[in-house]
Amino acid sequence: MSTAEPRVITSLTNDRIKAIRALEMRKERKETGLFVAEGASILLTARDAGFVPTSLVYQAGTATTPVARALVTWALGTGADVLEVSEAVLSKLSAKENPQTMLGVFRQRWSELPSQAARDDCWLALEEVRDPGNLGTIIRTVDAVGAKGIILIGNACDPFSREAVRATMGSVFAVPLIKTSREAFLAWRASWRGDVVGTHLDAREDFRHAAYKGPVLLVMGSEGPGLSDSLTRSCSRLVKIPMAGKLDSLNLAVATALTLYQIRGGALTI
Amino acid sequence: MSTAEPRVITSLTNDRIKAIRALEMRKERKETGLFVAEGASILLTARDAGFVPTSLVYQAGTATTPVARALVTWALGTGADVLEVSEAVLSKLSAKENPQTMLGVFRQRWSELPSQAARDDCWLALEEVRDPGNLGTIIRTVDAVGAKGIILIGNACDPFSREAVRATMGSVFAVPLIKTSREAFLAWRASWRGDVVGTHLDAREDFRHAAYKGPVLLVMGSEGPGLSDSLTRSCSRLVKIPMAGKLDSLNLAVATALTLYQIRGGALTI
Repeated sequence: MSTAEPRVITSLTNDRIKAIRALEMRKERKETGLFVAEGASILLTARDAGFVPTSLVYQAGTATTPVARALVTWALGTGADVLEVSEAVLSKLSAKENPQTMLGVFRQRWSELPSQAARDDCWLALEEVRDPGNLGTIIRTVDAVGAKGIILIGNACDPFSREAVRATMGSVFAVPLIKTSREAFLAWRASWRGDVVGTHLDAREDFRHAAYKGPVLLVMGSEGPGLSDSLTRSCSRLVKIPMAGKLDSLNLAVATALTLYQIRGGALTI
Repeated sequence: MSTAEPRVITSLTNDRIKAIRALEMRKERKETGLFVAEGASILLTARDAGFVPTSLVYQAGTATTPVARALVTWALGTGADVLEVSEAVLSKLSAKENPQTMLGVFRQRWSELPSQAARDDCWLALEEVRDPGNLGTIIRTVDAVGAKGIILIGNACDPFSREAVRATMGSVFAVPLIKTSREAFLAWRASWRGDVVGTHLDAREDFRHAAYKGPVLLVMGSEGPGLSDSLTRSCSRLVKIPMAGKLDSLNLAVATALTLYQIRGGALTI
């Protein structure tokens, strides 16, 4: 049984607090390999997924619910640095909109490109995704359809940014994430046995009627420009999402969700 | 033929500039009934939808493309106040991320609850939607599926905020928007002839297999709490979106898009 206790911090210039605050910067997240997740609900998901926090921070006087107390006990038991801070300190660390009273610092987990895939598997690749809210929402959707993970190709935004983590609603702790260059992706894709599916304006096949051959690798282009020519050529099947009127695009997270639900639909029941 | 010319403004304290900047505040948008749309692409949509700007602002030296020149000519022709401003002035008016060199000020358009609906019509009602990015994305999706409009029930975020307008990608100029109280909505709903559809965790019908009876009114709950009890009771049909594992919710814009594509699917072809 752990006899560790929270440390009390009220100074805004405390080094631990400054280090956590610095994780708002992408450069700092990259150098330390750490990231911040806010809110008891997301922290429960982290715990259940087997993540261990390096630090847990909560506002003095607020860890009174059974859930909050359980999270503090868990963090102390794992040997994490548990910090009880004043409201002023917490407000410096927490998001301005919808601020939370508890946050955890975790080590980022990155996976490798899978060496094999079962027939029912579905992977998602995103080309240069730009918007952290979109990326977080897509991570949540990938979790919801039971796809295997996400491959971030090229110059992607950071899935471990505050905005992305928040949009995942905890799924950042459940979905394997892989970072790769376009060249490495294309080399790896050469050995993919099933369909490599892209959505494209010039496609002649409706995404709802395509006979996807598993394992399916879905490749989605960036917000705005869409799929690049080289990735379009790498697809074995191009499909199109129908739209009314003159519109020619949907939000990336919406288009990804529609296609993923179509591909994974057979495996999902209420 | 108009002989009007742009006015040149370089002062950050110019009253017109201050008035446009004030539209970042919801209170100011409410009092004036105006809103700002940024970027040539969105402005083209506004023009094509028959909107007339009260002002058009562009950065000196940047209105050199045919599209930008056409927008300036259009705005001058409609009698709008056309302002050519310095880079410093524009940077005060434009969003910090992905700033645009042209923006327009428009009068908000609000519609009334429809008095009748054809069998193929689909309307969307959102209960207390909170996130402007979600709302903007949903406006864009409603446009893409050819639904008739959006009814904002209760304490909703503002579809005319910068973030929402940007997420609509111009569809804010195409989709009728209605604001109403819960009480007025429920009274109006009583005369709805077709299905009133809600998504609900306790539903026993898979949203993909339901036989929706038109005209369809889809009602979506708020981010987090979901549909309130009173709106749940107002539904004639409750459906559920299947999810893998332990997850019990999707992003609101994603859940809305999946359901709208199911309801409107028969009317859409590539």
